[in-house]
Amino acid sequence: MKVAVMGYGTIGSGVVEVLEVNKDLITARAGEPLEVKYILDLRDFPGDPYEDRIVHDYRTILQDKEVGVVVEAMGGVEPAYTFVKAMLEAGKHVTTSNKNLVAAKGAELIKIARERNINFMFEASVGGGIPIIRPLNTCLSAERIDEITGILNGTTNYMLTRMANEGVSFDSVLKDAQAKGYAEADPTADIEGYDPCRKIAILTSLVCGKQVDYEDIYTEGITKITAEDFAYAKAMDCSIKLLASSKRAGESFRCMVAPFMLSKNHPLCGVNDVFNAVFVKGNMLGDAMFYGSGAGKLQTASAVVADIVDMTKHAHVNIRIEWEPENMELVDYTESTNRFFVRTTSPIDAVETAFGVASGDMPGVVEYIEGVVAGEIGFTTSAMTEADFAKAAEQISVVNRVRLG
Amino acid sequence: MKVAVMGYGTIGSGVVEVLEVNKDLITARAGEPLEVKYILDLRDFPGDPYEDRIVHDYRTILQDKEVGVVVEAMGGVEPAYTFVKAMLEAGKHVTTSNKNLVAAKGAELIKIARERNINFMFEASVGGGIPIIRPLNTCLSAERIDEITGILNGTTNYMLTRMANEGVSFDSVLKDAQAKGYAEADPTADIEGYDPCRKIAILTSLVCGKQVDYEDIYTEGITKITAEDFAYAKAMDCSIKLLASSKRAGESFRCMVAPFMLSKNHPLCGVNDVFNAVFVKGNMLGDAMFYGSGAGKLQTASAVVADIVDMTKHAHVNIRIEWEPENMELVDYTESTNRFFVRTTSPIDAVETAFGVASGDMPGVVEYIEGVVAGEIGFTTSAMTEADFAKAAEQISVVNRVRLG
Repeated sequence: MKVAVMGYGTIGSGVVEVLEVNKDLITARAGEPLEVKYILDLRDFPGDPYEDRIVHDYRTILQDKEVGVVVEAMGGVEPAYTFVKAMLEAGKHVTTSNKNLVAAKGAELIKIARERNINFMFEASVGGGIPIIRPLNTCLSAERIDEITGILNGTTNYMLTRMANEGVSFDSVLKDAQAKGYAEADPTADIEGYDPCRKIAILTSLVCGKQVDYEDIYTEGITKITAEDFAYAKAMDCSIKLLASSKRAGESFRCMVAPFMLSKNHPLCGVNDVFNAVFVKGNMLGDAMFYGSGAGKLQTASAVVADIVDMTKHAHVNIRIEWEPENMELVDYTESTNRFFVRTTSPIDAVETAFGVASGDMPGVVEYIEGVVAGEIGFTTSAMTEADFAKAAEQISVVNRVRLG
Repeated sequence: MKVAVMGYGTIGSGVVEVLEVNKDLITARAGEPLEVKYILDLRDFPGDPYEDRIVHDYRTILQDKEVGVVVEAMGGVEPAYTFVKAMLEAGKHVTTSNKNLVAAKGAELIKIARERNINFMFEASVGGGIPIIRPLNTCLSAERIDEITGILNGTTNYMLTRMANEGVSFDSVLKDAQAKGYAEADPTADIEGYDPCRKIAILTSLVCGKQVDYEDIYTEGITKITAEDFAYAKAMDCSIKLLASSKRAGESFRCMVAPFMLSKNHPLCGVNDVFNAVFVKGNMLGDAMFYGSGAGKLQTASAVVADIVDMTKHAHVNIRIEWEPENMELVDYTESTNRFFVRTTSPIDAVETAFGVASGDMPGVVEYIEGVVAGEIGFTTSAMTEADFAKAAEQISVVNRVRLG
């Protein structure tokens, strides 16, 4: 099988490296040798062992009938979308590590592949080296998935782990993460939650079989989380994690990306540093979790190569993926129910008036946490809609609030 | 697709239930309805909704050309082996939840299925509802697996979790586990480690592609673990888990089933109660873990049904599984290296003489833990072979020893 790699950056060069290092075992598992025939990049790579495979025009790959599998590792929606679509229409299998492309165009590209009896795969687009796309499609095929919740961003999980362990501030840990290369110079996509938002949109689309638009998902980053919040978390024997979560609600889903306080008993609470994990609840299976490196050159490349092997073995068979272009309407954010942890400078009387006057099914305060930060009190609420919470919170002076997982 | 279920016990009836409860979504994913045509059992089930499908002779299934998939949920090697082999030879796909059958006859049954271009699958034989067999075969196909270590027995993990949390004795927690139905009346297969031994033999066979005989794996149960051992574990911020582990050693593997002390940083340390998990280290991927319910009727049945769906989608395609009948010679137990935690009533002088006279590469004591149990001291060793450890341990009076993970 002849392979073309589009984009010779971190992931693309990682794919070439994995194919080289594990050549023999990959050949055995694919049933034939996998040879990189072209590498598409705008740049030249003088001195690189693959220098002679570099091409600058994607049509060189498109027009070569020998190329059966194409790897898209360029990132971004365009020109990745144009190139990938053309490759699929020319009958070439495509695998991508590009969450932006999959979140925006997944349903359409899956449909094109299905019509041509080839495959469009994207295991590496969510959770890097963690197998999650393929397990959802094949291992959990007997399940109605009721929840899928992930720690899907390594940068923010590293930062939150440092804050939890060392009590340091958001700003200092961000600078350190940037110095170490874990966070980019412009960290917005990570710290504002845009990256996990696209990933949970992909996972939810696979769970419900319809298109979930990431623009429809309420997304809150970690920029407002402080060392004091972690002091409360410690007092409550919890940690704070940035979760991307979808929970079934009738025929729809409640989707959200936000920091959550998790008790030590939750399987995701122990997922630290740059590790990622995806928690899944099925109606037969109960709780399951997939854990591993969410990013990293070779880890992500390994997932891409697993796709290449699978597509080589299924050269003339479309492995069906249920993800139709029809739009899934998510539960409105204001109607989502959550429990909350709240810090306030208002007196308990005011809190009781706002939250505590439990009559009928009106939500109340579950627990007060005092003495952690001078001049304020913390408290946890029972489950309430976002709208009800906002209404109650307006009546007191809120320092910060974090949802409870 | 017409399905036959052999064995209408816990798992077999669970398979029928999963097919019933999630009928619509399973039909959509399989691409056609799955109908249970026969249930093979020695007993009758008067009043059961599937009463009319019960048959007592496996040849009824064998001779019915309509039956395309057979579920083996009888347990034990015979007559399961005879029945399964006959079904495969008749061109019927087979999935089994039976670790004893797979550990003993896996390579042969895989070969028969391959020759007939059908499939023999066994996702449910290891880790119940945790997807692990399929991920090893397809998701990690770009990896050289260097380690696979699991908590593969729910009964013993429940017992060890209780002992860790409550400081209770082995005997009392075993009685409680039996009362709750977590442990069988004859708990030998669990507490002596025979069950996880078969499971790690299966996983290691899949990792190395050759036959690993479970009789070749050193197996130590949890019967010697005491409340005092857990007191030391607590002092060392560790827990004790029954691990089934395979680590690559050149072209071979070091395999062992035994209780291990795990530090809180190890992903398996937080796996509690009846949950199971499999930790995998790949040469590209690094660390990954698969977590979930290791047993349970519906969880295990869900994995069986996922196999049925996969086989229905691959009705005329053999999904290649690398597991040849050729025998894999494991590293001799005495040559395996481990670190140890030791409790002794001997004085430190004697310990130093036996373990501590570090000259050249001779192993020594890493740390002493005193004051946990009156009249004894605990210590941890550096890595040494089992043979060297046995030699040194002979020179002192050992109360108990547990390997360090």
